[in-house]
Amino acid sequence: MKQFVVIGCGRFGASVARTLHSQGYDVLAIDNDEEKVQEISESVTYAVQANVEDENVLKSLGIRNFDVAVISIGSDIQASIMATLIVKEMGVKTVIAKAQSDVHAKVLYKIGADRVVFPERDMGVRVAHNLVSSNVLDYIELAPNYSIIEIFALKEWENKTLKELRLPAKYGINVMAIKQNDSVNISPYADDIVKPGDVLIVIGSNEDLSKLEKKAD
Amino acid sequence: MKQFVVIGCGRFGASVARTLHSQGYDVLAIDNDEEKVQEISESVTYAVQANVEDENVLKSLGIRNFDVAVISIGSDIQASIMATLIVKEMGVKTVIAKAQSDVHAKVLYKIGADRVVFPERDMGVRVAHNLVSSNVLDYIELAPNYSIIEIFALKEWENKTLKELRLPAKYGINVMAIKQNDSVNISPYADDIVKPGDVLIVIGSNEDLSKLEKKAD
Ligand SMILES: Nc1ncnc2c1ncn2[C@@H]1O[C@H](COP(=O)(O)OP(=O)(O)OP(=O)(O)O)[C@@H](O)[C@H]1O
Ligand SMILES: Nc1ncnc2c1ncn2[C@@H]1O[C@H](COP(=O)(O)OP(=O)(O)OP(=O)(O)O)[C@@H](O)[C@H]1O
Ligand SMILES: [Ca+2]
Ligand SMILES: [Ca+2]
Ligand SMILES: [Ca+2]
Ligand SMILES: [Ca+2]
Repeated sequence: MKQFVVIGCGRFGASVARTLHSQGYDVLAIDNDEEKVQEISESVTYAVQANVEDENVLKSLGIRNFDVAVISIGSDIQASIMATLIVKEMGVKTVIAKAQSDVHAKVLYKIGADRVVFPERDMGVRVAHNLVSSNVLDYIELAPNYSIIEIFALKEWENKTLKELRLPAKYGINVMAIKQNDSVNISPYADDIVKPGDVLIVIGSNEDLSKLEKKAD
Repeated sequence: MKQFVVIGCGRFGASVARTLHSQGYDVLAIDNDEEKVQEISESVTYAVQANVEDENVLKSLGIRNFDVAVISIGSDIQASIMATLIVKEMGVKTVIAKAQSDVHAKVLYKIGADRVVFPERDMGVRVAHNLVSSNVLDYIELAPNYSIIEIFALKEWENKTLKELRLPAKYGINVMAIKQNDSVNISPYADDIVKPGDVLIVIGSNEDLSKLEKKAD
C-alpha cells in the first residue's frame, strides 16, 4: 500500500488528503497553520504542524519513506518550490505540485516535480464549457482535440432508438452512456430508446461536439 | 449569444473568463484589484476595477443585462455573498458562485445562486483518484456511483482484440475510447487490437473500476 504525504492543507490539499485517506491509504498531512492541522486531523492518519521550508523538519518526519508527496501550496511560491526541492532530494519517488502560473510550473518541473497541477485553472475551463450551453451539463477534455460531454437529449431525439438516431453518422459522436435520474446505462444498445429528460454522455472531436452544443441550445 | 459577467478574477475566475471569451462570447470581468484587471484585460471584452459590494457600482455597469454571472470570490465570504445577492436581485438569470466550504455554499444557495462550485475540492478528489494507481491517468465522476477512468492497457491485454478480452463480462466495464499517442479512436470495434502503451478510456461502476485499478497497479 502506497504512503502519501500532503504538504499544505488549503482547499485543494485538504481534499486530496481526505480522499486518499477515505480510500484506505495512509496519509500524513502537514501545514504551517495550527488551525488547518486541527481541521484535517480527524480525516487523515497523522497531521503535523510544521514549516516545510525547514529541511530538518521534513527529515525528522521521515519524509523519505513516503511514496508520493503532494505539494499543495499555491500562494507562497517560495515555500512551494522549497518543499518540492527538499522532498525530491530526499528521494520521494513521485512528487505532484500545485502551481499558480506557468512560470511557477516551469520552475517546479525544473527542480524535479513529476506532475504539476492547476486546479483552479482546469476547473475554470471545465465550468466555462458547462456554461455556454444550458443543455450541456458537463464537459471533460480527453485529449487535445477530443472531449466527453453530458448533454440533455434533444427534443427531436425523444422516444427514438439509438439506431434510428444515427448519431455517429449525423454528428460524428458516440453515445457512451445514458443517465436516467440516478441510474446509468453504461452499455447502450442500438435498440435502447432515448426518453425525455435523459442525459447522454457522448464522446467526439471538439469540432463535432461544438456543433452539437450549438444545436442543443 | 449569451453575455457573461465574471466577478472576481482570481485563478478560477480568470480561467472561466478567458475560456468563455476564447469561445467567442462577450465577457465583462470585474475585480477590486487593479493588477488583476490589467492582467485579464487583453483576454476579455471589458475589464473593470470595482468593489462589487457596492450595489451602485453593479447598477452603473448594467449588470442586469447579462445572462450569466460567475461569482468567483473564494476567500472573502462576505463579498461573495453580497455580490451573489445583488446580481440575483438585479435579475441576472443564471448565477454560478464559487464556495470555500459547505456552510458558504448553503448560504449562496439560500440567497439564489443557481449552482455552487468547489473547484479546489473537486479537483482534489480527482487528483487523489489519479494518484492511487500509477496506471490510472485520469478519473472523472459521472454519477454518484459511476465513473470514467483513463488507464494504461494491462500487460496481459496487449495484442489481443477487445472481443477476446471480454472486459464487460470479466470486469463489468466498457471501453469507450482508445488513445494511441495523440490519436483517439472513439468507436472501438470488437476486432480492434490493444497495443502496448495504449490508454483505454473505460466506464463502469466505482466498485468495478476500483477492482480494475488494483489489478493495474
Ligand atoms: N512553509 C509552509 N509550510 C507548511 N505549510 C505551508 C507553508 N506555506 C503555506 N502553507 C500552507 O499551505 C496551505 C495552502 O496555501 P495557500 O492557501 O497559500 O494556497 P492556495 O493554493 O491558495 O490554497 P487553496 O487550495 O485553498 O486554493 C495553507 O493552509 C498554508 O497554511
Ligand atoms: N469586493 C470585491 N469586489 C471585487 N473583487 C473582489 C472583491 N473581493 C475580492 N475580489 C477579488 O476576487 C478575486 C478572487 O478572490 P480570492 O483570491 O480571495 O479567491 P480565491 O477563491 O482564493 O481565488 P482562486 O480562484 O485564485 O483560488 C481576487 O482577485 C480579489 O481581488
Ligand atoms: Ca450547462
Ligand atoms: Ca460503445
Ligand atoms: Ca484557490
Ligand atoms: Ca496515476
